[in-house]
Amino acid sequence: MAKIKTKRERVKFASDNVAGACPEVLDAIIKANEGDSTPYGNDEWSTNLQNKFSEIFEKDVIVYPTASGTAANALALSAMTPVFGSIYCHKHSHINTDECGAPEFYTGGAKLVPLNGINGKFTPEELSENIGGAGIVHHTQPSVVSITQLCETGEVYQLDEITAISETAHKHNLKMHMDGARFANALVSLGATPAEMTWKSGIDVLSFGATKNGCIAAEAIIFFKPELVGNLPFLMKRSGHLLSKMRFVSAQLEAYISNDIWLRNAKHANKMGKKLSEGLKSNSNIELAYPTEANEVFAKFPKPIIKHLNSEGYKMNQEELDGKAVRLVAAWNTKESDVDQLLETLSKS
Amino acid sequence: MAKIKTKRERVKFASDNVAGACPEVLDAIIKANEGDSTPYGNDEWSTNLQNKFSEIFEKDVIVYPTASGTAANALALSAMTPVFGSIYCHKHSHINTDECGAPEFYTGGAKLVPLNGINGKFTPEELSENIGGAGIVHHTQPSVVSITQLCETGEVYQLDEITAISETAHKHNLKMHMDGARFANALVSLGATPAEMTWKSGIDVLSFGATKNGCIAAEAIIFFKPELVGNLPFLMKRSGHLLSKMRFVSAQLEAYISNDIWLRNAKHANKMGKKLSEGLKSNSNIELAYPTEANEVFAKFPKPIIKHLNSEGYKMNQEELDGKAVRLVAAWNTKESDVDQLLETLSKS
Amino acid sequence: MAKIKTKRERVKFASDNVAGACPEVLDAIIKANEGDSTPYGNDEWSTNLQNKFSEIFEKDVIVYPTASGTAANALALSAMTPVFGSIYCHKHSHINTDECGAPEFYTGGAKLVPLNGINGKFTPEELSENIGGAGIVHHTQPSVVSITQLCETGEVYQLDEITAISETAHKHNLKMHMDGARFANALVSLGATPAEMTWKSGIDVLSFGATKNGCIAAEAIIFFKPELVGNLPFLMKRSGHLLSKMRFVSAQLEAYISNDIWLRNAKHANKMGKKLSEGLKSNSNIELAYPTEANEVFAKFPKPIIKHLNSEGYKMNQEELDGKAVRLVAAWNTKESDVDQLLETLSKS
Amino acid sequence: MAKIKTKRERVKFASDNVAGACPEVLDAIIKANEGDSTPYGNDEWSTNLQNKFSEIFEKDVIVYPTASGTAANALALSAMTPVFGSIYCHKHSHINTDECGAPEFYTGGAKLVPLNGINGKFTPEELSENIGGAGIVHHTQPSVVSITQLCETGEVYQLDEITAISETAHKHNLKMHMDGARFANALVSLGATPAEMTWKSGIDVLSFGATKNGCIAAEAIIFFKPELVGNLPFLMKRSGHLLSKMRFVSAQLEAYISNDIWLRNAKHANKMGKKLSEGLKSNSNIELAYPTEANEVFAKFPKPIIKHLNSEGYKMNQEELDGKAVRLVAAWNTKESDVDQLLETLSKS
Repeated sequence: MAKIKTKRERVKFASDNVAGACPEVLDAIIKANEGDSTPYGNDEWSTNLQNKFSEIFEKDVIVYPTASGTAANALALSAMTPVFGSIYCHKHSHINTDECGAPEFYTGGAKLVPLNGINGKFTPEELSENIGGAGIVHHTQPSVVSITQLCETGEVYQLDEITAISETAHKHNLKMHMDGARFANALVSLGATPAEMTWKSGIDVLSFGATKNGCIAAEAIIFFKPELVGNLPFLMKRSGHLLSKMRFVSAQLEAYISNDIWLRNAKHANKMGKKLSEGLKSNSNIELAYPTEANEVFAKFPKPIIKHLNSEGYKMNQEELDGKAVRLVAAWNTKESDVDQLLETLSKS
Repeated sequence: MAKIKTKRERVKFASDNVAGACPEVLDAIIKANEGDSTPYGNDEWSTNLQNKFSEIFEKDVIVYPTASGTAANALALSAMTPVFGSIYCHKHSHINTDECGAPEFYTGGAKLVPLNGINGKFTPEELSENIGGAGIVHHTQPSVVSITQLCETGEVYQLDEITAISETAHKHNLKMHMDGARFANALVSLGATPAEMTWKSGIDVLSFGATKNGCIAAEAIIFFKPELVGNLPFLMKRSGHLLSKMRFVSAQLEAYISNDIWLRNAKHANKMGKKLSEGLKSNSNIELAYPTEANEVFAKFPKPIIKHLNSEGYKMNQEELDGKAVRLVAAWNTKESDVDQLLETLSKS
Repeated sequence: MAKIKTKRERVKFASDNVAGACPEVLDAIIKANEGDSTPYGNDEWSTNLQNKFSEIFEKDVIVYPTASGTAANALALSAMTPVFGSIYCHKHSHINTDECGAPEFYTGGAKLVPLNGINGKFTPEELSENIGGAGIVHHTQPSVVSITQLCETGEVYQLDEITAISETAHKHNLKMHMDGARFANALVSLGATPAEMTWKSGIDVLSFGATKNGCIAAEAIIFFKPELVGNLPFLMKRSGHLLSKMRFVSAQLEAYISNDIWLRNAKHANKMGKKLSEGLKSNSNIELAYPTEANEVFAKFPKPIIKHLNSEGYKMNQEELDGKAVRLVAAWNTKESDVDQLLETLSKS
Repeated sequence: MAKIKTKRERVKFASDNVAGACPEVLDAIIKANEGDSTPYGNDEWSTNLQNKFSEIFEKDVIVYPTASGTAANALALSAMTPVFGSIYCHKHSHINTDECGAPEFYTGGAKLVPLNGINGKFTPEELSENIGGAGIVHHTQPSVVSITQLCETGEVYQLDEITAISETAHKHNLKMHMDGARFANALVSLGATPAEMTWKSGIDVLSFGATKNGCIAAEAIIFFKPELVGNLPFLMKRSGHLLSKMRFVSAQLEAYISNDIWLRNAKHANKMGKKLSEGLKSNSNIELAYPTEANEVFAKFPKPIIKHLNSEGYKMNQEELDGKAVRLVAAWNTKESDVDQLLETLSKS
């Protein structure tokens, strides 16, 4: 908020959070507005959500809706670690670099142990080498492993990769967290079921992202093991994330996961990402930094091209990810013509 | 969320947060959904909001929208006190009793010093007697005074009462915070201007409530002194309250404070409160606990009557406020017939 | 440390922490300095301490030595409450007013709920009236009751008073903490055994004070229920209170509780307190504020007398305890002549 | 404390914290025990300390004594960073790996950013590459650089290395902290003055270690810039590190820095380290892991030798520093015969 600049034009591709809500989600808000309702999540939408998510995940899950992804991550982690815990994550993970220390705040001071990884993913081997100090009072105590799906380079953890990391985590009595900010995009990329990509691969707690893929402000903390819920309801309240009119968050989520809306949105975004990726690849001045596996495209542009695009109203940020690549993200509402326009602008630079 | 019960019927009067959004606010959300926008509050709605609020308060203010009132309070306080500060407030204030320790969490451990008050308000004298220990390392350091407007008994702090408390606070170098969860209801009750009820009476930082009075999830932290903003943008982000699609919160607020919508809603709610209050007063079994000055009514009911009302689907909670009284709250959407129906149900008990 | 003033003369009676260590404790430090030792409490003194304290308390206890009473209290409480807990204590208790918010800091934001009490003690009735909100996410959760022995007015909680408060606490599933900064003084005043004054009266965790009564810097957190220890070793380390050369703290404690040194010291201090109290009472200008039951004397002095005493080098602090009374404290090393001298100085004012 | 084992034999070389106090320091404690004194650091020893340290550092410094090195580090850092700050340090630094998250706890959640370094030291280049995100709310904010002197491999940062790192830090508006747990050992190794190794090389705040080198429990936080002190007195109190009988910590420090005791102790320890290092080097089975520049020796032992030494009562810990090397530390009281005995035991394995 500090420095406010207004730019609506061509924020496309800057991120998938520049898009609004898809029609079904907006409709759900409008419908939820009819009549009064008990507050603080004691409403029919929030109740239904438990059942709906349990169906989708083929398991009884416990769901806490939140309005923010950073909140979902930080709250989930705070239920999984003591104040003196270690949380193992990729050095470029959102929880480590893009949440202004929210995990440290919510956990009361737990330590994020950054792993280098290979591109955006880390391996069970690197994880294993870094876990240590259990039971020794001088060291923060190994508590949680967190992976991001899509990972920070837009790639997708394969099911066997998730499973291998989870096995290492569980072998050391650590809990497995997945930051699923782009859960649907990863899911449709893998062609896996929600169950397969989570608890069947060893995930204990999931931050289920929905905002970027068609909601206004709706995420969910999903517990696959009820014993891990702990004090979460109190932690939510005391962090100001238990909204009084929670029904409006739950209603978004309900619409989002109904009738395959979320999968439809993600498939489209991924398709647009693929189209963009292929268009860029065909430009001899541009090099893809990582394979495009879903809706995020990372590419290396010559500086003059970046300058040109920005002069045309785009927001290309070279600083991202250590200056190694520019990130472009397709959203549920990206049109073929948006991609064409960008590629055309590029071709003129 | 822990125990989920679904009850939509007759939650009326349980609180004003059982109501949804008023049409103008819902329309603003729908309109804000057209097109893409830069995220994290760098959008046109959030920018406009600064100007709009500055107009309304007749002063350049700095505004941070949030989705939750507890967040607004806790964030505001965390910008106003060191970790070892004392925050003086009414013992029944929302920040002291209804936020599960959010102020302590956000401030990093500041101490809320509860004042007994006379009914729901405290006086400059009681405040003055309790301020102490400045400069002595053994004691938490006097930092903030917080009042709630409407106060916890539904009464309204008069302008001269606010001014007198502010003067005491400022004399001791403390900052003045107002929890304005029902700001509009108080304002129309007093017939004062926003400026008069805040900075002209010595308020430094305001939690401006809008959710209860016609929004879905929209509050604002308003700084009347720019030097008090401090690190708020970082504190918001690391607490997960900087929503990516912040425009939807800002759009609600913009609609809410435009065209006197907020005042219209509050006037109606207060009128319904008054009607309810008078209806109750005419029942010889029921005694008003506090004067009804806005949209909250506190009354003492014989237990059989409470039982009767609850059996008819109402949610009368005798535990509130030390079991001394039941609270009934009229909202922007309370109908005359809702009041009549309650009174009629009462008359049959 | 901020403002340093050097005054060694006549600090007597200002507090019992102005005294140094008794000879036996100093000798123990000197002896512990012979040879090397494993650090961080893995030494023979620390080990012996467990057995020694278990003997004294007639029960297997778990002991953690610390160098500071504030640390002992804050660490003990942090093992007993969740971050969103309520800790019930006297409004004038040391944890509430003299530790600059240490309990809030260590517990991660728990709320101290101040009770008014009658003089320095509170009753089971007042406690009971204040316990509420269990299981409701909006409220901090009742977790701990803490009493101070000697209490803040120098009076002693009787065994049946402790028992009655403990029963109320346990009935509500709260844990009982005793801040025993002047444990020995209370013990010899009551003529009770350590077991009687603690676990036999329902105390779960004790902050055992030794510094004031003859040590240099030595306190102990004593757990009467092993299941309450929780993560204390990690909490100690991460707060910087696990000293590397911990043997020197343990050695002090070992000497202190050996050969009844602690009881001898406390008996003498109490005797001097009594002598002082009686001397003051015989002065018609001075009124005892509370009965003198151990080594602390609270009395109301006319202002000119305070002025006179301070001009003679004493440090009489009228601000203490709401300006109602001046506190004078006898220590293990207070001489009869010290008392005589004060009384004589008084008689000349 | 959790699991207590008693071993006094041959803890030599396990660390320099196995040694007791040197005679002069013990004498100072004994002398400080004569008579009464004002508590909480308002005593003559604490006052003198300010002057004494100012002399030694050739600059007016502000000194806060503490009983623990972890406390000194964590408190110092908490005065230097906001809650959302980044602290850049070596990945093996004590603050990152051996304080159970104390810096995170004390700072309210700041993030330690680990640098790989070359051996135990990091370079201005690596630091520079890692500093980023200033002013952007999504990122923790670059705030402090902390180096350890001796560093974690027993090597010494040269004056020009410190200066280069400080310049990089200051260029980015970060503050420079030095963890001087073995400050004296580094100082005599360099042959530098205290001023040269600190503020003349750009250090802003120093954790001055004394415990390991001849005290019982005495460290000091030393501010070279008064404007950085901030709220430290309150932070000390609320963390339980403002001891009531602080004079005994100050007296240790005063004796320690008087008459070059500290330098004498460090010179001897370094000499013994050198002797040990050369003895090990001459053993063809043993390889020094890092050059021995002060009193810490890191060497790679074949497993059977470690087993042999441990069977002879030594405590060789192969786990230290990623299993790469065993650390042996000479102390102020290590005798030539201690070194000879170890080498002889070795020769028989």
